[in-house]
Amino acid sequence: MTAGFSLHPRLAADTIFVADWVLSRVVAMNDARYPWLILVPRRDGATEIFDLDAEDCRTMIEEIARASHGLKTLTAAVKINVGALGNLVPQLHVHIVARNPGDAAWPGPVWGQGMAQAYRPDALDAFVRQLVNAL
Amino acid sequence: MTAGFSLHPRLAADTIFVADWVLSRVVAMNDARYPWLILVPRRDGATEIFDLDAEDCRTMIEEIARASHGLKTLTAAVKINVGALGNLVPQLHVHIVARNPGDAAWPGPVWGQGMAQAYRPDALDAFVRQLVNAL
Repeated sequence: MTAGFSLHPRLAADTIFVADWVLSRVVAMNDARYPWLILVPRRDGATEIFDLDAEDCRTMIEEIARASHGLKTLTAAVKINVGALGNLVPQLHVHIVARNPGDAAWPGPVWGQGMAQAYRPDALDAFVRQLVNAL
Repeated sequence: MTAGFSLHPRLAADTIFVADWVLSRVVAMNDARYPWLILVPRRDGATEIFDLDAEDCRTMIEEIARASHGLKTLTAAVKINVGALGNLVPQLHVHIVARNPGDAAWPGPVWGQGMAQAYRPDALDAFVRQLVNAL
């Protein structure tokens, strides 16, 4: 099922590679407004969580918990938001976003809140290095 | 851990009881704009998915998949949105929302999109009966 896996072009354009875990490719959104990971299960054709088999579902929630806990520890955020929407990008992907009062969308959701604010290249490199160590 | 469980007052005010599953209380949002379930793990003090232990995590993803599949089958929605935000209501809860092009928030998220539109009482009863059969 991993054979032929590739990120949806929209995800590829908006993110940078962090790691490949057992099930998911882990990428970071290039949006400096929020520390933001996306987990993309490497399963062709999956669009809903129930498209994953039972074993992959268990791995999915372990990876959601791992990414959430790591991002919370790294950023000391007040809240982690988790979301699997897919209204625009059908490839199954799970957002893990560190949130704090006063951030650009608080207390609303981050999705659909205007244009991403790209990191400076050096800041993006530093963020990804921190993620690789923290997750 | 179930002892003393009670829904957060905001969730209690906005929803109606559907079922108690192994881990989660299943409630339906009283918002006729979207078919919308919320799963609330009956674990006092949990605010993040990683607050659940490994067994509860496995049950959580099974219940997310079950609710998502049931709601998709019942409504024939184009997409199921899943979200655990908690910026306003700290009690851990997972939204499962049936989405279609042209709905009140499409393609954006449903959260933070104005006031809920309550069902008429008979329509709410009918929706809950359908859910009990479909899930």
